[in-house]
Amino acid sequence: MIREITRPDFASFWPTFSAIIQAQETYALDPDMTQQDAFSLWCGSTLNAYAYVENDAVLGIYYIKPNGMGPSQHICNCGYMVASEARGKGIARLLCQHSQDMALERGFKAMQFNSVVSTNEVAVTLWQKLGFSIVGTIPKAYKHARLGLVDSYVMYKWL
Amino acid sequence: MIREITRPDFASFWPTFSAIIQAQETYALDPDMTQQDAFSLWCGSTLNAYAYVENDAVLGIYYIKPNGMGPSQHICNCGYMVASEARGKGIARLLCQHSQDMALERGFKAMQFNSVVSTNEVAVTLWQKLGFSIVGTIPKAYKHARLGLVDSYVMYKWL
Repeated sequence: MIREITRPDFASFWPTFSAIIQAQETYALDPDMTQQDAFSLWCGSTLNAYAYVENDAVLGIYYIKPNGMGPSQHICNCGYMVASEARGKGIARLLCQHSQDMALERGFKAMQFNSVVSTNEVAVTLWQKLGFSIVGTIPKAYKHARLGLVDSYVMYKWL
Repeated sequence: MIREITRPDFASFWPTFSAIIQAQETYALDPDMTQQDAFSLWCGSTLNAYAYVENDAVLGIYYIKPNGMGPSQHICNCGYMVASEARGKGIARLLCQHSQDMALERGFKAMQFNSVVSTNEVAVTLWQKLGFSIVGTIPKAYKHARLGLVDSYVMYKWL
């Protein structure tokens, strides 16, 4: 059900991706980016990206990439998205668990999220349940569409 | 004395750049990267880079770039390097002050350093003097050449 993403997978997931970045509540991405730019950013050559597929529908995606180079190359970074109609079913949890397995397989020792919007309580709580800690708080780091400037968290787990 | 960097500036500074990344004590960069890769990383199209020049010698360099996109595009990120023979003369301070001016000129509201190695006391102290706070501590984020795994700080200043 979770497999390497293809370009058609990404295209079929694009309405969700686009809605998420346009909402400006969770991701620090340009809300007006094109599908091509998004594909490069999420599935480009230095990344690995996966899709959660059920009955031919792409319900979730994630990427994994190094968060640093050289002396920090043991830390990876991931990002996850789930289609709105598929939320609350544990797909984000499955994706995160899968990404941790992939991380270990690729030799990473830790996983870091650089910008978890503090008001995204569902995500913060889920990452904490999965063993991540808030190791930093960036004040007024995110201009939330409804709430204005809010803090972002750096979250981290030694795998 | 501080001006936009040129390709010859970068080439003349390369021995310092190379020594700094090979030391593996301060920067999370591949110690074996080529000059061309380093130029792209430091002076590529999405960045602005500057050089501190004295008597035709490039003694320091820095870059400034956005640290996030969309809802976080008000935060910039910078990196600084000073030639070993020119340290202790206030050049890093000058570069950082210049970068803060440039940041405001370009419309940034805050500056974030994502990976200040905790054992790099000279840098940590200088950034604190210049108004930056430690807003995060990433455990065992940096494999220091002499000290092994050490923490990195996220440092931040609202401009």
